[in-house]
Amino acid sequence: MTNSLSDRLAPYAAVAADLGVDAVALVPGPNFTRAVDHSFMSHERPFVLVIPANGPPAALVPNLELGSWELVGFDGAVFDWRDQTGYGDAFAKLMAHLNITSLGVEGQVMRVFVHHALMTAQPDLRIIDAEREISALRMIKTEKDIEALQLAITLSERALHRTLDTVKLGQSEKEIERKLVQMLFAEGADELSFSPIVAAGDGSARPHAHARADYAVKAGDALLIDFGAVKDGFTADITRTFFLGHATDEGRAVYDTVLRANLAGLAATRAGVTAHDIDDAVISVLENSPYADRIRTKTGHGLGRSVHEAPYIMRGNHMTLPAGTVYTNEPGLYEIGNFGVRIEDDVLITEDGYRLLTHFPKELMVLPC
Amino acid sequence: MTNSLSDRLAPYAAVAADLGVDAVALVPGPNFTRAVDHSFMSHERPFVLVIPANGPPAALVPNLELGSWELVGFDGAVFDWRDQTGYGDAFAKLMAHLNITSLGVEGQVMRVFVHHALMTAQPDLRIIDAEREISALRMIKTEKDIEALQLAITLSERALHRTLDTVKLGQSEKEIERKLVQMLFAEGADELSFSPIVAAGDGSARPHAHARADYAVKAGDALLIDFGAVKDGFTADITRTFFLGHATDEGRAVYDTVLRANLAGLAATRAGVTAHDIDDAVISVLENSPYADRIRTKTGHGLGRSVHEAPYIMRGNHMTLPAGTVYTNEPGLYEIGNFGVRIEDDVLITEDGYRLLTHFPKELMVLPC
Repeated sequence: MTNSLSDRLAPYAAVAADLGVDAVALVPGPNFTRAVDHSFMSHERPFVLVIPANGPPAALVPNLELGSWELVGFDGAVFDWRDQTGYGDAFAKLMAHLNITSLGVEGQVMRVFVHHALMTAQPDLRIIDAEREISALRMIKTEKDIEALQLAITLSERALHRTLDTVKLGQSEKEIERKLVQMLFAEGADELSFSPIVAAGDGSARPHAHARADYAVKAGDALLIDFGAVKDGFTADITRTFFLGHATDEGRAVYDTVLRANLAGLAATRAGVTAHDIDDAVISVLENSPYADRIRTKTGHGLGRSVHEAPYIMRGNHMTLPAGTVYTNEPGLYEIGNFGVRIEDDVLITEDGYRLLTHFPKELMVLPC
Repeated sequence: MTNSLSDRLAPYAAVAADLGVDAVALVPGPNFTRAVDHSFMSHERPFVLVIPANGPPAALVPNLELGSWELVGFDGAVFDWRDQTGYGDAFAKLMAHLNITSLGVEGQVMRVFVHHALMTAQPDLRIIDAEREISALRMIKTEKDIEALQLAITLSERALHRTLDTVKLGQSEKEIERKLVQMLFAEGADELSFSPIVAAGDGSARPHAHARADYAVKAGDALLIDFGAVKDGFTADITRTFFLGHATDEGRAVYDTVLRANLAGLAATRAGVTAHDIDDAVISVLENSPYADRIRTKTGHGLGRSVHEAPYIMRGNHMTLPAGTVYTNEPGLYEIGNFGVRIEDDVLITEDGYRLLTHFPKELMVLPC
């Protein structure tokens, strides 16, 4: 193994040691990508990298991925398997080779069929959910991580500006979404962080609405756009809510409340604050408004290689947040059947405060369409 | 519950009964979407729909999804939970309400953290992997499913034609990929089936290569493009391999071999054939060529709401395939460090043969760039 891959895997061995398990296992996803500096697909094929607390790593690799796996520069044991023969044998060999009795896995990433394959290969294996500890390694961003995040965010914001220039009354949410996606790729997106949410009118009141082909946007609608590009493996996640043609007094008051909550969260942000404290600052503004019954979500989540990752910014999470953490500050108020407003920034925590990675204006904007 | 949702859930209750388990559980993904006719995101939040063999269904729903969940018209018990309080209590209530001792789950979709939450709520629960039986309900496509698939495929092919018109020597794989993605959305894609594979030269030899920003395509390169759009919830999956400027004799011979394998698979296709037999027809052509050592993959997989689903077209899978099944016929030959060729069609099995849903030409094409 090259020193560099060795260096990359060492923190995972340390996680296993800290947890008192014999090894941790990674499957394709953000931790896997970070560990081996290459990204892989998974689909229906198990693909597992096992990093023991002590000793060399081993991998179970679908045969058709061996060509890509070569690029990783891995010199641990590799157990490959082909679709035609199945993976049971490869799991048996992997586990016999490893000689371990406990294994930490990524509970949010590993699927049940891999869990079952591990348990079939070694029925006495003790599997624990080490998602939090494994993913915590991604929490403090490097300079290079932040550069990639900033690139992803900046290009996403350019795409939003270009999209807004084309919004017209009578367009469907779906048309607006499609334009946004084209602009994202035109601006250099590698992928989408997720399928964008473009939701107008009553749709904006559903936090995870899908763009509708049969809803034409109309004057007075709130238009909520939640979206982001992936660039160099890092994900943007931005929300802005606009009003079309005009905003009602209620729309303005709700918007103002959400914006004040967002700003209160920023004001509370600095290295050493807890996730609880940021959420408390944000949610308190919403609770002390006339719209407390429209609260449906916490403040936000960590952002990096994954669009939802630790730390989760919510009351009860008393984890202190170090400088280098990036989180989304995304308060919202949603009245089902009426409308919703969300404003989401991507925020880098610094020693003495924060740096906003999102620069798109947050003042209430009425689109003159 | 509306009759229509009742009708949609009945087959899942029947799967539970057939398997001898008390219930099956669905989590957001293609089966869930098919069952409730709405799609949901999952991320870090557990969201589970339980359908007992007998009796009414129940659901565990993140509070912020309640607005979207209303659209489903579900009148079973709903246990919602909020980020701030966590989901442990909701799982405990769900399991107490259900009073079951065994549960079939989608092993390829459910993640380990949900498995752990279920086992924590009810330590004596017997969880079995019912992926195959649950997903089998998606195998035979309805007329409406096939219409959506055909739409997805047709728009994808139009996007490929438009992209090829713009390919020039010296472009990076990434530039070509980005153009393709823009064309897909311009043609009406709702989403991408997956991040496209645009791989030239030695990159084409890695079946799941990523488009490189630092590889400029050059004369003589093979250019493999594997991609597809999602439309109305159904996914296209198409591969064509081109040659840039000119094709070597080796390139032509390999291409011809792969095309003959593809055609042999089509010739073997009709209702009642086994997955094994189609793969055997395809792979035999490759094995009986001078390039047998370049075989790395099986023939293909089912295609529908998910881009990889049953049936898996491989030797050893003796499942007979009924009319209405759609599968990918995608033989390939890959020499690591040299080049690869793959040709992938989407094929609907009919009573007396097949209908090709892909219409993009398969003759060897040298792009005059």
